[in-house]
Amino acid sequence: MNRREILKGGGAMLAGGLASGGAEASTADPVSPRTAERWGVFEESFTGPTSRNPFIDVSLRAVFRRGAREIWVDGFYDGEGTYKVRFMPDELGLWTFETDSNVAGLKGRRGSFECTATKVGNRGPVRVQNTHHFAYADGTPYFPFGTTCYAWVHQSEELQQETLEALRTGPFNKIRMCIFPKWYQYNRRVPPRFPFVRNGETNDYAHFNPEFFRHIEGRIGDLRALNVEADLILFHPYDKWGFQEMPAEMDDRYLRYVIARFAAYRNVWWSLANEYDLMRKKNMSDWDRYARIVTEMDPYAHLRSIHYSKAPYDYSRVWCTHAGVQDYAFDKAAQWRAEWRKPVIFDECMYEGNINSRWGNLSGEEMTRRFWLCNMAGVYGGHGETYVSYDDIENDNAILCWSHGGALKGTSPKRIGFLRKLLEEIGSAGGGRIGLEAIEPVYYLAAKRSQNEAMLWYFDFHQPSYYDFPLPEGAKFKAEWIDPWEMTVKPVDGVFSGKSLIRLPGKPYQAIVFRKV
Amino acid sequence: MNRREILKGGGAMLAGGLASGGAEASTADPVSPRTAERWGVFEESFTGPTSRNPFIDVSLRAVFRRGAREIWVDGFYDGEGTYKVRFMPDELGLWTFETDSNVAGLKGRRGSFECTATKVGNRGPVRVQNTHHFAYADGTPYFPFGTTCYAWVHQSEELQQETLEALRTGPFNKIRMCIFPKWYQYNRRVPPRFPFVRNGETNDYAHFNPEFFRHIEGRIGDLRALNVEADLILFHPYDKWGFQEMPAEMDDRYLRYVIARFAAYRNVWWSLANEYDLMRKKNMSDWDRYARIVTEMDPYAHLRSIHYSKAPYDYSRVWCTHAGVQDYAFDKAAQWRAEWRKPVIFDECMYEGNINSRWGNLSGEEMTRRFWLCNMAGVYGGHGETYVSYDDIENDNAILCWSHGGALKGTSPKRIGFLRKLLEEIGSAGGGRIGLEAIEPVYYLAAKRSQNEAMLWYFDFHQPSYYDFPLPEGAKFKAEWIDPWEMTVKPVDGVFSGKSLIRLPGKPYQAIVFRKV
Repeated sequence: MNRREILKGGGAMLAGGLASGGAEASTADPVSPRTAERWGVFEESFTGPTSRNPFIDVSLRAVFRRGAREIWVDGFYDGEGTYKVRFMPDELGLWTFETDSNVAGLKGRRGSFECTATKVGNRGPVRVQNTHHFAYADGTPYFPFGTTCYAWVHQSEELQQETLEALRTGPFNKIRMCIFPKWYQYNRRVPPRFPFVRNGETNDYAHFNPEFFRHIEGRIGDLRALNVEADLILFHPYDKWGFQEMPAEMDDRYLRYVIARFAAYRNVWWSLANEYDLMRKKNMSDWDRYARIVTEMDPYAHLRSIHYSKAPYDYSRVWCTHAGVQDYAFDKAAQWRAEWRKPVIFDECMYEGNINSRWGNLSGEEMTRRFWLCNMAGVYGGHGETYVSYDDIENDNAILCWSHGGALKGTSPKRIGFLRKLLEEIGSAGGGRIGLEAIEPVYYLAAKRSQNEAMLWYFDFHQPSYYDFPLPEGAKFKAEWIDPWEMTVKPVDGVFSGKSLIRLPGKPYQAIVFRKV
Repeated sequence: MNRREILKGGGAMLAGGLASGGAEASTADPVSPRTAERWGVFEESFTGPTSRNPFIDVSLRAVFRRGAREIWVDGFYDGEGTYKVRFMPDELGLWTFETDSNVAGLKGRRGSFECTATKVGNRGPVRVQNTHHFAYADGTPYFPFGTTCYAWVHQSEELQQETLEALRTGPFNKIRMCIFPKWYQYNRRVPPRFPFVRNGETNDYAHFNPEFFRHIEGRIGDLRALNVEADLILFHPYDKWGFQEMPAEMDDRYLRYVIARFAAYRNVWWSLANEYDLMRKKNMSDWDRYARIVTEMDPYAHLRSIHYSKAPYDYSRVWCTHAGVQDYAFDKAAQWRAEWRKPVIFDECMYEGNINSRWGNLSGEEMTRRFWLCNMAGVYGGHGETYVSYDDIENDNAILCWSHGGALKGTSPKRIGFLRKLLEEIGSAGGGRIGLEAIEPVYYLAAKRSQNEAMLWYFDFHQPSYYDFPLPEGAKFKAEWIDPWEMTVKPVDGVFSGKSLIRLPGKPYQAIVFRKV
């Protein structure tokens, strides 16, 4: 809900009962009533003018109504004389809509559809819940375990399918990805599509290339089908085509176009930038303006953040729904949580791999450990993978998941999946507020659920052979030993309450979980 | 050299030529001239009064002279009517001495000895060299690789011999050890000797127990024979007998007695305290007074520091020759070096072991890693070992090297020895200023010798499969791959100069050393 959704007074709204499909609607069916799944995409197409510049000269908006609610969305030109409006309904029942336009044929077009119950797997968009955590709109807890494939949508179709397969079978439920193509080390190939019509080496900023955006929204839809959140990076500095230094007016038009097209996908998150501070042509007022456009234009209040290189962003800014930090100062997690009072994702805490760059050559063990460090602190980690073979570098053939996507080669994903499963079990089971909170003061890394439904210790490089766990009095717990690398879970004999001395395996990087009986 | 050594003006000193052995000297030999090795101990014994209290009522000092130099030392009462004076000569040739006392029979006793050349293994006391490093008095670089056996001298003779054997065969060249016995977890046994005469459960502070101190100095001598520095902890809070809260006057008398007895041992270092800030009965002016006593009374300017628990000491204090920190903030090493301009030893950066306490259960890998982190930063690490078997704890039989000494069980000592050997090779070979200095800004951990005689990279948890090493132009280097855990050294083909791309094993915790050809 934002200022674009207007609660109209009284019972004056009758439009809901006056639905009409409209012959121009591409999804029209004159016999059965039109439907859209809750948190699915309702889309309506219209034929409109191709004269002058449809991207600039034609305005199209639509208002969707149900009861006293009124939600305005921008339409967009999809090329070949086709204009579209998309909408993600969040409430069951009949919705009506009506367009407005500066063109007669696109103005006052009306219609309606029935918002139907969600199908299996559709839990709605992810929202902040319990201050530092997330849940889907239907209340299902969402624990972000994200990876990074910056330029995967700009690769060959075959490679994109490999990426989707890796996501289907892998542990990740979020992906950081750029809209603009990428020019950077290991990324010196011309992308198959450009966002604007190209005149030789020049961008015609007056004309979007609908095929480029249609392609990306297809991929966002693919991710949605896999229940993977698409953490869309709106701007980034790794560019040689001019997209990082467009005129301000063009930046704004691009944002509006992207939002008009993509916002109705429930799995969209907005990341204003990757490494915003490396975009030398932009200043803080630019970022403020982008934040304002995104918050104003997105009627669904998708999650919003921004990502830095060296200069941390002020994540206390209210437009940020969460912090997406590029950092590995895990010991600051508690301070940041307390200061910003929102979820913190260390979504770039270096990657597993073997390249020469310091940020891209963690061992699988260290990548796994960092996810544990994050989760034990009540924050979340982020994965990326940067393995190369030296010959591929020399031939400029290297495929690094971190940017290109493709199959995962590393040893951490399986272990990250193991942790995700554990967290999904203990982070929400038994009711109460979801998510882990660090137990302070921490002697070892310890975290718990509200009401102590579960308590977790992670010993990192410590290898105690026994420990007096300070469990709460008045509750009983069963314990399991967890080896995060071997991915084993072994029950500990006994039921524990209060201070409990337990003999431990004397091995580093082990964990123990206590579950309330 | 300190204020107790007085350079006398002119050529008035004739005493040097007027040596006499003195019949009471225990080491006297009326036939051959008396000798003492340079940086060895010259000791002279006298018989004196046993009436009243020899510890308090009898003063004994001696001045040692050579040329224009005059060095005063305190003598001490060793029981049974025997008074002693000890002196560590630092200059070859004839030294004379003369006693002063408030007792006629101990006053004006004179003698001389010839200071002879050092024997193999005697390099003199360790001094600060090149601001952040150390060397023996003979110029041999000394790189501290210390361990911790707080209460080893208070254990059974058999166990003490095991400790000495572990030191003889192990990698350590310094040991942190307490003078007072210890009462603490795993240390709840009555020691075989006490520093004072005991009346039941009460200390008779007016009477030292010479046997207690004689025993310790024997052990200091044993360490000296092994070339192990004895980092003597003068006060500590782990006590149930009252030694942590003696009257101020008694503290001072104790310090003077210890210095009179031990200072002539070249391998002595003074650590005012272990965890000074846990000694609640003492305030900062007490520590200032102790520091003053040690600097004034020790004529040899042995190395001096102090050790904290939670409240870092101000190591910029000039009396501190070096910082001995209890910390593991290795990333602060550069700042501390720059701020204090003296050597920094992280001599308690947790221990390898398996006990329940966070400070005592590092894996061998992590302990090893910490030594690398220290040395790469141009500072030094400290070892300790805290392995127990659970049954031993229950029976209160546990022997932990960290306190009791004994044989080492851990996996880090061998690897620490490997690093020590490497450092001794590259930290001083080829001339120039000794010791490693971190290369800033560090992309990976890198360190070098002055004049780039050697350069060292340590990749910690990074596992690059290639890297462009920014070697200096105009010099040629040979390279070797080092696996700090496997303790292997493998030559890298080629001779390198300037920016050099080298393919690497893509394995974490590896190092590479470049040696100037």
